[in-house]
Parts: sequence; C-alpha cells; structure tokens
Amino acid sequence: MSVEIERKFLVRSDAWKALAQGVAMRQGYLSTHPDRTVRVRIEGEIATLTIKGRTQGFSRGEWEYEIPLADAAALLNDICERPRIEKTRTRIVHEGMVWEVDEFFGDNLGLVVAEIELASETQTFARPDWLGEEVTGDARYFNSSLLKRPYTSW
Amino acid sequence: MSVEIERKFLVRSDAWKALAQGVAMRQGYLSTHPDRTVRVRIEGEIATLTIKGRTQGFSRGEWEYEIPLADAAALLNDICERPRIEKTRTRIVHEGMVWEVDEFFGDNLGLVVAEIELASETQTFARPDWLGEEVTGDARYFNSSLLKRPYTSW
Repeated sequence: MSVEIERKFLVRSDAWKALAQGVAMRQGYLSTHPDRTVRVRIEGEIATLTIKGRTQGFSRGEWEYEIPLADAAALLNDICERPRIEKTRTRIVHEGMVWEVDEFFGDNLGLVVAEIELASETQTFARPDWLGEEVTGDARYFNSSLLKRPYTSW
Repeated sequence: MSVEIERKFLVRSDAWKALAQGVAMRQGYLSTHPDRTVRVRIEGEIATLTIKGRTQGFSRGEWEYEIPLADAAALLNDICERPRIEKTRTRIVHEGMVWEVDEFFGDNLGLVVAEIELASETQTFARPDWLGEEVTGDARYFNSSLLKRPYTSW
C-alpha cells in the first residue's frame, strides 16, 4: 500500500495547454463505494487496477496493480459501471513539481482539474498562474462521483 | 478472462471429511454487486484479487490476479466489507474430477457446500455418495450473499 496525498484545483485559464502534450485515458469503476473504490484504467498501452480506501484529510490508502491490456478492455466494455470516464491527462512540471491536468469529455465536458501529489500534508508548492480555486475534499469532483453526477448536470 | 462453469451442491453426510486435508481460507469483498464482485482471498501463503461478472446459467466471467500477501492482509483488515468469510476448503478427487468442499465458520457455521468446475455446461460427472441437493444458481449460497444474509440467520 502507498498513501496518496493529493490536492486538487480548478484552472482559471487555458494557458496550461501550451505547456505539454496530453495522453488519452479511459477508466471505469467496479466499485464507487467511498470506503473502497476499485478502478480500471487504460492509459496509452498500460492498464491498471487500483483500489483506494476512504479519503481522510488529503490522504487515501491506495493499492495499484498492472493488469493485461486485454483484461482491462474487457472489464471496461462489459463489467464496469456505466458511464465510463474519458479524459486527457497532461503532466506539467512547474518549479520542480508535477501537476496532472485532467480535461474531461463526454458527460463531464467542460471540466478541467489540476492535481498535485505531495510527500506530506504540510508540503508547500508554487502555484502556477493558470491555477484556480482549490477543490480538495469536495466529493463532487471525485472521479467516482463524476459517474453518478456528471459535471454537465450541475 | 476465463469463463467459470461451476455447479454447487449441499452435502448429506460428513463422509467427505475423511478423504483429504483442508486448507484455511479468509476472504472479503470490495464489491458484492452481482454484476461485478471483487474478492480478496488469502489461501495459505497465496493471496489473490478476483473479479467476477454476472452469473449466466452455470457460467461467469472471471479475472484473477495474484497480489502480495501483505496487501491482501491490509485490504481484508481495513478496506473490505464486513464481515469477512472464513472457511476451510478441502479438495477431493472423485472418479477423476476435483470437488472443492467448503466448510464455513463464524456467521455461516453449519454450512457446507461442494463445488465442481466443468469444462462445458453439458459435461457429465460422477456424484459422490456424500453429495446432497444441487444449489447452483441459488443466490443465497453465493459467497457475496453469505456476507449480507449469513446461513445462521436463515
């Protein structure tokens, strides 16, 4: 297990788009229970199965396993809850820290969130100009919530 | 993915107990949704994560991955739904076919079921003397159901 410490923000401009190339991601859920989410994800040629526990503060237990691409495709097509989440992830380095900017499509079209992974809950970091309001801990923005109440329905 | 074709029976005597040595199993669920169960199991020193789709007839899609024992112990202790299932599994060969006899403890004390895995839905097999009534497809006997409505509550 690793403990995931993440902070999540909206963006306030498209300036991040010029900074790096994004990669397409497709993901779905076998469980969206907040105490135990189970996610299937395909990113490029890599497929993973990820289990996460309940979020406590900025932290969450996480267990991740790589699985065969064909298994992930079958799970996404036949077994995962509908709808699936489709997004483009862009990794941007800003003053030595990696930001992951997720631009959503489909039912969540228009939503863009930027996440940073930290080594501790108190670690400080520089905020890029394009960064907007913090939404860490706002359950509406959990990927598992975006399945049930997509952004376009807010 | 493999397709699992199983038939499940009760037993009508304890005669199976003299035929082989059982092994202790501990398992819990990250999802008990009938369309997508996700199971964590420790059997001896081997831990697995198993995803199963909806049962159709005697068949069910199944994807299984071995995971580190320490991960499985943490998932069972901290993340899986309560209660967990504790049972002893005894593998018995009868006329060339393997029977798995599961004797349950805890909330399911008193329940014993015998399962056989088949290569096709029409495959025939010899029935041991100790075999009882068939319960294939009876959802009460699914391990995922035994969590919510344990045998001692029937």
